[in-house]
Amino acid sequence: MRSLLHLSRLAAFAVAFPMLFADEGMWTFDNLPAKQLKEKYDFVASKDWLRHLQLSSVRLSDGGSGSFVSAEGLLLTNHHVARGQLQKSSSAQHDYIKDGFYAETREQEIKCPDIEAEVLVSIENVTGRIAHQTESITDEKQQFKARKSAIAEIERDSQQKTGLQSQVVTLYSGGEYWLYRYKRYTDLRIVFAPEQQAAFYGGDPDNFTYPRYDMDLALFRVYENGKPVHSENYLKWNPNGAGDGELVFVSGNPGTTRRLATVSQLHFERDVADPLILDLIKDRIDTLEQYSNRGSEQARQAASEVFNLQNSQKAIKGERDALLNPQTFAKKEKEEQDFRALVMANSDWKQRFGGAWEAIEEATRKYEPRIKQTLFRGLDSTLAEQAETIVDYVAEIKKPDGERLPGYQEAQLNSLRFQLFSPAPIYPEFEKAKLAASLRTGLQELGNNDPFLKIVLNGKSPDDAAAALVDGTKLADPEVRKKLIEGGEAAVTLSTDPMIVLARKLDPMRRELIKWREDNVTSVLQHAGEQLGKARFLAYGKSTYPDATFTLRLSYGQVKGYPMNGTLAPSKTTFYGLYDRAASFNDRGPFVLPARYEQGRNKLTLSTPFDFVTTNDIVGGNSGSPVVNRQGELVGLIFDGNIESLAGDYVYDETVNRSVAVHTAAMTEVLRKLYNVGPLLNELGIREDSSTNSSSSRLEGGSRLYPLRTKPK
Amino acid sequence: MRSLLHLSRLAAFAVAFPMLFADEGMWTFDNLPAKQLKEKYDFVASKDWLRHLQLSSVRLSDGGSGSFVSAEGLLLTNHHVARGQLQKSSSAQHDYIKDGFYAETREQEIKCPDIEAEVLVSIENVTGRIAHQTESITDEKQQFKARKSAIAEIERDSQQKTGLQSQVVTLYSGGEYWLYRYKRYTDLRIVFAPEQQAAFYGGDPDNFTYPRYDMDLALFRVYENGKPVHSENYLKWNPNGAGDGELVFVSGNPGTTRRLATVSQLHFERDVADPLILDLIKDRIDTLEQYSNRGSEQARQAASEVFNLQNSQKAIKGERDALLNPQTFAKKEKEEQDFRALVMANSDWKQRFGGAWEAIEEATRKYEPRIKQTLFRGLDSTLAEQAETIVDYVAEIKKPDGERLPGYQEAQLNSLRFQLFSPAPIYPEFEKAKLAASLRTGLQELGNNDPFLKIVLNGKSPDDAAAALVDGTKLADPEVRKKLIEGGEAAVTLSTDPMIVLARKLDPMRRELIKWREDNVTSVLQHAGEQLGKARFLAYGKSTYPDATFTLRLSYGQVKGYPMNGTLAPSKTTFYGLYDRAASFNDRGPFVLPARYEQGRNKLTLSTPFDFVTTNDIVGGNSGSPVVNRQGELVGLIFDGNIESLAGDYVYDETVNRSVAVHTAAMTEVLRKLYNVGPLLNELGIREDSSTNSSSSRLEGGSRLYPLRTKPK
Repeated sequence: MRSLLHLSRLAAFAVAFPMLFADEGMWTFDNLPAKQLKEKYDFVASKDWLRHLQLSSVRLSDGGSGSFVSAEGLLLTNHHVARGQLQKSSSAQHDYIKDGFYAETREQEIKCPDIEAEVLVSIENVTGRIAHQTESITDEKQQFKARKSAIAEIERDSQQKTGLQSQVVTLYSGGEYWLYRYKRYTDLRIVFAPEQQAAFYGGDPDNFTYPRYDMDLALFRVYENGKPVHSENYLKWNPNGAGDGELVFVSGNPGTTRRLATVSQLHFERDVADPLILDLIKDRIDTLEQYSNRGSEQARQAASEVFNLQNSQKAIKGERDALLNPQTFAKKEKEEQDFRALVMANSDWKQRFGGAWEAIEEATRKYEPRIKQTLFRGLDSTLAEQAETIVDYVAEIKKPDGERLPGYQEAQLNSLRFQLFSPAPIYPEFEKAKLAASLRTGLQELGNNDPFLKIVLNGKSPDDAAAALVDGTKLADPEVRKKLIEGGEAAVTLSTDPMIVLARKLDPMRRELIKWREDNVTSVLQHAGEQLGKARFLAYGKSTYPDATFTLRLSYGQVKGYPMNGTLAPSKTTFYGLYDRAASFNDRGPFVLPARYEQGRNKLTLSTPFDFVTTNDIVGGNSGSPVVNRQGELVGLIFDGNIESLAGDYVYDETVNRSVAVHTAAMTEVLRKLYNVGPLLNELGIREDSSTNSSSSRLEGGSRLYPLRTKPK
Repeated sequence: MRSLLHLSRLAAFAVAFPMLFADEGMWTFDNLPAKQLKEKYDFVASKDWLRHLQLSSVRLSDGGSGSFVSAEGLLLTNHHVARGQLQKSSSAQHDYIKDGFYAETREQEIKCPDIEAEVLVSIENVTGRIAHQTESITDEKQQFKARKSAIAEIERDSQQKTGLQSQVVTLYSGGEYWLYRYKRYTDLRIVFAPEQQAAFYGGDPDNFTYPRYDMDLALFRVYENGKPVHSENYLKWNPNGAGDGELVFVSGNPGTTRRLATVSQLHFERDVADPLILDLIKDRIDTLEQYSNRGSEQARQAASEVFNLQNSQKAIKGERDALLNPQTFAKKEKEEQDFRALVMANSDWKQRFGGAWEAIEEATRKYEPRIKQTLFRGLDSTLAEQAETIVDYVAEIKKPDGERLPGYQEAQLNSLRFQLFSPAPIYPEFEKAKLAASLRTGLQELGNNDPFLKIVLNGKSPDDAAAALVDGTKLADPEVRKKLIEGGEAAVTLSTDPMIVLARKLDPMRRELIKWREDNVTSVLQHAGEQLGKARFLAYGKSTYPDATFTLRLSYGQVKGYPMNGTLAPSKTTFYGLYDRAASFNDRGPFVLPARYEQGRNKLTLSTPFDFVTTNDIVGGNSGSPVVNRQGELVGLIFDGNIESLAGDYVYDETVNRSVAVHTAAMTEVLRKLYNVGPLLNELGIREDSSTNSSSSRLEGGSRLYPLRTKPK
C-alpha cells in the first residue's frame, strides 16, 4: 500500500542527486524531462494538458492523493486513503469499512469529520526572496531563525492576498524554495466504498506485493458552501484502461524519499532510527491486537490503526532491507563519492560546499543519544495529543509568526483548528489501552527514572495513570476543546482537566527537546542541505527532480511486467487470478472471497484486467493518484508498489521497481455488474453494459444479496 | 524442472554431513528417520508399506523416475522425462511433442527406441567386502584400483547369480558401499502424452518456479517378452489428491547433491567449473537456436535438446546463485568448521581423518589447469560419441573387468549395447551444425594449437571438418554399429569410416586424460571421501542420509505454502490460475493457452487443484516421482522444485524449499473432460465423471477439435 501512512517516521534530511535512469523521477510540473519524454515516447506535454491534469489532481490531508472524475465534484481515491474517514463515520451499529458504503442520493452521502482536500493552483519560485534574508548570515542557528521567519512571512502574505492555502516547499534539499498555493476544501462526503475484503484482498501478506487483486477505490464528493463543487477540470474515465507498453503518467503527491540523503544519514536510518521505529511499531501492533481480542466492537475500533501500523511496518522493513542489501548500499556510496570528488576538485566549490558532508555526519552523531527521547517520550492517545496542541496553541499564537513552534504558523492555523475540532468519535477504553501501553514501552526503553515518565506516572502504574487521565478529561467533546482555544492562555492556565494539566507540566520538557534539535540538528542539516543542493546544481545542472515532499509531482512510465522470483510477472492480472488465489488458499483468512464476488462470479468476464503495473516512479503518498494516458484520460488508480519498489525510498531500478494500480476496466466491470450503482455509472460517463441485465437474471440475488451499507436515516 | 538433465556437469565429490532439519533428507529405504516420522507426523512405515512403494517405483534411464499405476504395466512419469522418447519417435510428419499422443489400443502404442526402466528389487551392504580388499592399502592410486576391481567383481557376480542388473553404490561419500539389484525392462511403449504446451505451460520463464500450471505427465506401458508386464505392485490412483498440511512421501531417484562437499569443493564449483559450464551451455543453446531458425522441421529436431540445455542453464545458474549468496556460503563454512573442530579435538580421529580436507583442496587445485580440456575437448555429435564408444568397447572387453575404463564393466554392458544400438533417428545436418559449433567453441577456449583440435580439424575449418565426418560416416545405421561391435577390435582397426578413424586417433589422448584424472583427482577424492565418511559416522552417528546418487530414496514432508516475494505462496494452484496467467500475458509466447484448454474451459471445474507444493526434499532425477499419502496411494506427480529449491544442491531450508507436483485431481479432471481417453480412465480406476457428457455437449467439438496424435498406420 502506498499511502503516506508511515510518515510518522523521522524527518528525512535529503541531500544528494542520483544519476537519472529511464522512467525515473517524481518531477515538479514546472520542470518535466521534456527531452526524455520526446525521445523515448515521442510525447510532448502541452501547457493545457499539464494544467488540466494539475487542476484535476488533489492532495488529501489523510496522507494520499486523488483526482476529480466528474463535473460535480466526484473525487476518486483509494479505499485505504478513505479508510480513516470510513472508520470515524462508523459505529458499533454501522461498519462501513467492513460492509462498504454507497449513497444513491446526495442526501445519503456521509459528511467526513476531518479530511481536507487541496488543489494546487499555482507555484512560484521564492528562493531569491529567502536568500535575500538568509545568505548574509553565517551562523547556522541564526540563519535557521531567519529562514523560518522569511518562510512564515511569505506564506502569511500569500494567504492574506489570495485567500489560498499557502505553503513554502523546500526542494532539492534547500537548493530551491517554492511557494505552493492551494485551493482548500474541508467538506468532503463519502459516496462509494467497496467492502474492505474487496478493496484490501490478500490483506497484510499481499500488501506491497504483486500480482494483486485489489479493488482499492473509494469516491468522495467535494462540497463548498453546502453544494457540490463544479469541477471544471476532471479526468475523463476511459473504461478500457491502458495496454501493455503504453505510456502512462501518474499525478500525485509522493511523501518522502531519501534519494539525496548522504551516506551518513543512510547509516543513521538503517542502524539507529529504523530498528527503534520498528520496535515501537511492533509494540503498538501488539497492544492493538490485545485490545481487538476483547471483542468485535473493540476490533472494529482498532481496525484502521492496525492497518496503518502493519502497513508502516512492512514498508519500513522493506526500506531497511534495501539498505541492508550490500549492492544497494554500495551504489549509494559510489554516488556520493563521485559527487564529493567533483566538488573537491573545484577549489571554489570545495571552499563553499566541501564541509557539508562532515557537518551532516556530525549532526546525526549528535542526534543519536537523544533519539530515544524523541521516539519514546510520547503518549499514544488522541486526547493527550489534543491537550498538547491546545496548550501549545494558546501560547504560540501570541508570538510573532516567525518565532512560533513548527506547525503554529499563521498559514497553518485553519487546518490545525479543523483537525483539532474534529467530531470523530474517541473511545475511552481504546485510549486507555493505547496510553498505558505507550507508557509501558517508555519504561522499557527509557527506564524508571526518566523525568518525562515520572511526571506522567506520578507514582501510579501505567494502567492506573492512563485510566485516571482518560476518565478525568472532558476533551473528548469537541466543544470543550473549542472553548479552551477560544478562552486562550487564561482559560488553559486555569483548566483543571487532567489532560491539560499534564500537557502543561510536560510543556517545558518538550520545548527543550524541540529547541535542542533545532539548534543542533535541524539548523545544521538545513544549512548543509542548501550547500549540497547548490553544489548539485553547479555540478549536474537542474535536469533532475527533487526528493519527494508530499507535493504534486508527475511521473511517467509504461505498463510493463518484470522479472520476478525466477520467472516473469505479467503487466496485469485478471479476475481469473482473484478466483485462483481464493481457491488456492481454500477461501480462508485474508484470501477469502468477498461474498459479492463469490455470488457474482458468473456475471463477470473473468479475463477482464484487474490490477496492473507500470514503471512509474512513486512512493507512499501517491496512493489514490490517477494514472492517465497520452490523452489525459483516467486509465488506472495507483494504490501500491511492488515489494521491490520499497527500495525506491533510496534508489529507483527500472528493471523491477513497479507501481501497482487498479485498472479502469476492473472498476468499470464491478461497478456495472456487481454493485447496484446506476447513478454513479451515469456520473462517471460509463454506459450500462448491455449484457448486465441478461447476466444479472442468471444469478439469484447477486449484489442485492449483499447490499452496501447506506447511511441510516 | 526436476529431471536429471543437467547431470552432464562434473562429477560431484561429496564429503561432509549437514545438520538435519525437519522434513530434510533423501533417505535410503533401509534407514528411514523413524523417530522423526513418528514424532512429527505420528507415522510408522510398515515393512509392507515400504516394500510396496519400493517395488512400485521405477528408475528411468533418460534421467527421471516413475511409478507403476496399473496392474498391466502402466508407468506414470513426467512429459519432460518422456520427452526424449517422444522426440525420437517423431518425424517431419508426426510431432508427438507438439501435438501429444494417445494410443487407444495396445497396437497403437509406440515402442520407444532407447529407454530402460529399472525396479529396485534388493539392496545389500557390501562395505565390509570392499574394505576387505582395500583397507590395508595405503597408496591412494593402488587403493583406487583395488576398489574398482572389487566393485566390478561384486557387480558381475551378483548379475550372474541373480540375473538382476547389479550396481554398487557409494553412499556417505564412501562411508558405505551398497549393492543395488534391479529388475530391468527395455521394452517401453508410449501410451499417453499431452500436448507440450499443456505439459510445459509457461516454458523456460516458469521453469523451476511456482505458482505453476503444468500438466507434466506421460504414461508408458512396460512390456516384457512382447507382453505388458503384470505389475503386482502399483500405486492406487487417488483422484482427490492431498490437502493442505497432509503428510506425503516422494519415492524416486534424486540425481546429485553436494551437501557433503567440502568448502574447497564448493569454491571450485562456484568459481571454476560452473562459469565454464554455463559458457558451454550458452554456446550450445545459441547453436541450436540458429539451427532452429532454419525452418520448422529443424526446430522440431532441435526442440528436445534446447529444452534440456535451457533447463540445465537455469538450474546451474540457480545453484551457483545459492553459492554466491553470502549467507548460504557462510552456513556451509560453519558446518565444516564445526565438523573439523570435532575431528581435530580427538587425537585418534585427527590422525586417521584429519588430512582429508587438505587432500581434497589439493586435488581440486590440481584439477583446475586441466578442467578446460575435460569440458572443451568434446565433440557435440551423437555419431562421434557412438564412434568413441565402439572404439573403446572392443578394446576394453578384452581386459579383466576391474581394469577397464569406467562404464565398460561387465555388469554395464547390456545397457551400453542397448543404448548404442538405438534405432533413434540421427539427422545429418543437425549433427554437422552441432559438431562444427563445438569445434568453434573448442578453438575459442583452447586455442588453435590444442592437439585434440588439430587432430579433429586436420587443417580444415570447423564446418568443413564436421561436414566431411558426418557425410562420410555410415554409423547412423544401427546395423553398422552392431557389425563393428560384433567384429571386435579387428573390424574396428580396419574400419575406414571417418568417425571411427577419428575416434581411434583421439583414443590415446582421452585415455591419458582419464588416467591422469584417476591418479590425481578421483583416487584422492575417493580416499579422502571415505575418511570423512567414517569420521562423520563416528562424530554424528548414522541418523542421517547420504548425498543423492540417482538411486531410490524416500523423502517425507507436507503439502505447504511458503513465504514468497513479500507475500505467501499457496500450497496449490487451480485451473483459474492457468486462465489468469494466459490472459495476463495476452495469450502470448510461453503463456499461450493450449487450444484444447481454450476450447474446453467451460467443461472444467476451475477451482480444481492444479499443481501443488510440498516440503519434500528432492532434486533433479526426482522428475516423475510419485507423491503418495499415508495409505501409499498416488496423490501427485513430482515435476519440479521452486526457484528457492535450487539451493537444495547444497542446503535444504524448510522455510522456502519446495517440490512442485501435479495434483491427481488435476490429472483426473483433464483426462476425464478434455482428453478422449476412456480406456485409460478405466485402467487407472478413475470412473467417468457423470457431468462430463452433459458439459461436453455444451461445447462444439472440444477435444475432438484437437485430437491427440495417434500412431500412423
